[in-house]
Amino acid sequence: MSAPVLSISRRTRETPFTRRVTEAGVRGYTVYNHMLLPTVFESVEADYHHLKRHVQVWDVACERQIEIRGPDAARLMQMLTPRDLRGMNPGQCYYVPIVDETGGMLNDPVALKFTDEKFYISIADSDLLFWAKGLAYGFRLDVDVNEPDVAPLAVQGPKAEELMVRVFGEGVRNIRFFRFALLSFQGREMPVARSGYSKQGGFEIYVTGSDIGEAIWDALIVAGADLNVRAGCPNLIERIEGRLLSYGNDMTRENTPHECGLGRFCDTQTAIGCVGRDALLRVASEGPVRQIRSFAIAGDPVPACTRPWPIYAGGDRVGQISSATWSPDFETNVAIGMIRMTHWKDGTTVEVEAPDGTRSAQVREASFI
Amino acid sequence: MSAPVLSISRRTRETPFTRRVTEAGVRGYTVYNHMLLPTVFESVEADYHHLKRHVQVWDVACERQIEIRGPDAARLMQMLTPRDLRGMNPGQCYYVPIVDETGGMLNDPVALKFTDEKFYISIADSDLLFWAKGLAYGFRLDVDVNEPDVAPLAVQGPKAEELMVRVFGEGVRNIRFFRFALLSFQGREMPVARSGYSKQGGFEIYVTGSDIGEAIWDALIVAGADLNVRAGCPNLIERIEGRLLSYGNDMTRENTPHECGLGRFCDTQTAIGCVGRDALLRVASEGPVRQIRSFAIAGDPVPACTRPWPIYAGGDRVGQISSATWSPDFETNVAIGMIRMTHWKDGTTVEVEAPDGTRSAQVREASFI
Repeated sequence: MSAPVLSISRRTRETPFTRRVTEAGVRGYTVYNHMLLPTVFESVEADYHHLKRHVQVWDVACERQIEIRGPDAARLMQMLTPRDLRGMNPGQCYYVPIVDETGGMLNDPVALKFTDEKFYISIADSDLLFWAKGLAYGFRLDVDVNEPDVAPLAVQGPKAEELMVRVFGEGVRNIRFFRFALLSFQGREMPVARSGYSKQGGFEIYVTGSDIGEAIWDALIVAGADLNVRAGCPNLIERIEGRLLSYGNDMTRENTPHECGLGRFCDTQTAIGCVGRDALLRVASEGPVRQIRSFAIAGDPVPACTRPWPIYAGGDRVGQISSATWSPDFETNVAIGMIRMTHWKDGTTVEVEAPDGTRSAQVREASFI
Repeated sequence: MSAPVLSISRRTRETPFTRRVTEAGVRGYTVYNHMLLPTVFESVEADYHHLKRHVQVWDVACERQIEIRGPDAARLMQMLTPRDLRGMNPGQCYYVPIVDETGGMLNDPVALKFTDEKFYISIADSDLLFWAKGLAYGFRLDVDVNEPDVAPLAVQGPKAEELMVRVFGEGVRNIRFFRFALLSFQGREMPVARSGYSKQGGFEIYVTGSDIGEAIWDALIVAGADLNVRAGCPNLIERIEGRLLSYGNDMTRENTPHECGLGRFCDTQTAIGCVGRDALLRVASEGPVRQIRSFAIAGDPVPACTRPWPIYAGGDRVGQISSATWSPDFETNVAIGMIRMTHWKDGTTVEVEAPDGTRSAQVREASFI
C-alpha cells in the first residue's frame, strides 16, 4: 500500500516559501506548529548526501517566533527556563529548555535577545505561546506576547557561508556561532543567526515580513547556482547521526531536561524565578536515572520509527528508541533513545524490539559525528 | 505532480486505533493535536455518501482530553470561557468557546462535566493544555491539569444508534443530545456522549485506556456488518455543508466567538471570572462587524482551499473564504468564510478570488442542511 498523503488545509498553514517549495518538487511534508514542514525532496538519502557536500535552502517557517516585549520581558523569559539568562547579551542565541512547574519539557527552542525588553523564542513543535501567555496573564506581567510575521529560512551545508556572503554581504562572516546580526536585504533589516538544525554549519534568516519571502528564496537560489544550491529540509538521517533532538519525538512533557542530556543548559541553582526550579533542584544535583543516548542498531535498514520501540536487557525493559533510520555513511542503523543508568554506559549491548523483530543494539555516549 | 505524502514519526502520534485504520485502507491523514487524524478512506466523495446513508467508525483520538480535577476545577473552567457554566450539570456536554485576555479564540472544544471537581475538555487543534496550566499556575489554583489516556472514537451516521445499542446496550437510547452516560464495555466504564463532528447524528465514545481501543473498534465493526458499517472520518464535504467550524481553518486567535457566530454560546455579562470578559463586553452588546457565513461558489469544482481566498465586492475586500469544496448533493461549491456586515445578508452576491480565477458567490445565512 502506498504511503498516505497529507491533506492540506488552511489549518496546516502554508509558509511564505510554500510556492517555491512546491516548484522545487517537495515529495513529503510533516506538520509542525500547525504549519507545513518539508521532509523530503529527491529522497531522504539523496538529500542527505547533498546536504553534507553542498548547500541547501530550507523552509523552516514552522519554527514560529514568540515575541516577548516590554519591561517584564526578561522576567518572563527566566520564568520559562532553568538556564540562567543573566549573562545573555543582545545579539546572542541561547538554546533554552522550557519546563513546566513539574520540570517537564514543554519545548526546546532557541531564544534571541535583542534588548532587555525584547526577545524572540524560535519554537519547536508545541504551542508555547499559550504557556507564555498564561504565565504573563496569571502574574500580571508587563509584557506583550505575540507571534509576529517572521518566518525562518535556513541555509545549511558546508558552502552556506559562501552563499550567504553573496546575498547578505561580508558581514555574514563576522557572525559567530549562536550569535545573530541585523543584516539587510532589499533595504529591510532582519536577524541573521549562525545556527540551524544540522551539523553541517549554516545560518538562519529570520525573514521579517511574508511579502519578502520569495524574493530572498530566489536570491539564494540564483546566487548559489555554481555552488550546487538546492531546496532541502531538516534531514532525518543527518539529524539522528548528529543526535539533534526533536521535541515530541525524542522527548515530551514526561521528561526533564536532565534526562534529555540538556543538563549543561540548566543552571537550576541560580535560575531564580524559573517556575520549574523547585521540581528540578533534586534531579539537577543528583542526576537523572535515565538519559538520552545514541544507538547503533544491527541488521538491515529499520522500518520507519512511528512509535517508541522498547529496549530490553536480560529480560527487563530498560528504555526506548524514539528515532531511528539507516545511515549510508556509517553503514548501520543509527538511533536516538532513552535508557536507564544501569545500561547507559558506552558500548553496552541491548536488545531493541523493532516492528519487524528483535535486534541487537549498542549504546553510544557520543553521537555519530 | 502527485500529492505530497505525510512523513509519520513518533511526534505525529499514532492512536489506539491506528492499526485498524491502516488495515481499513486509510489514504490520507492530517495532523491534529500532534496526532494522526484520517481524512479519507475510499474517496472524500464516496465516504460522504456512505456517511449520509449508513454508519461509520471514526478515529478521533486527536480530540485530546484535558482533565481538570480538584477543588478549583469549576473556577478554572469559568476562567477559560465566556459561556456561563453555573447551570451546567454532571452528565452534560457544553460547546465552550475558549478565549484569551483579548477575547481571541484559543480553541472551541466540548467540555464534559463529571462533578464540580472534575471536567474533561475535548479539544480542537491547539495546545490548550498549556494555557490552562499557565492560568492554574499563575493563579495558584488548587487543580490538577493533565492529558489522560482517553481516546475518543466516534460512531456517526443515521444507523449509529442501532449499532451503539448492539455494543453498549439499550442505555444508549436514553442519552440525549450533548449528554453523556457512563457505559460499560468488557467491564470497563467510560463516557459515551451523543455528539460528534457531523450532522448525521451519532455518538462519541471516550475510550478510557489505549489497551481496549482495538477491542471496541472490532466489536463495532463486527456488530454492524449488516448495517454496512465501515471506517470513516470527519468528512470535508459534509462538515462544510453543515457549517461545522474547524479551529485553525475557519477561525483563529484573531477572531472573537461573536465573529464566529458563537455569540449564542457566550454569556459575557454573567460569566464572571472569564479572563476574556472585559475584552468581549463591548462586542457582546454591539455585535461583531464581520461574521462567519456559508457561501455557494459558482462554477466547476474548486481546487483545495489551502489558504484564505479573498472576497471582494465592488472592488473592496470584504472578507475571506476559509473552507471550500464541491458538494455532490447540492451541486454547487459550498464554503465557509467570514464577511463584513455590509455584505453578510442572505443572498448577497460577492466575488471570490480562488486560485484558478475569480468566481461569483452567494452569501447564505443558513448552512446547507
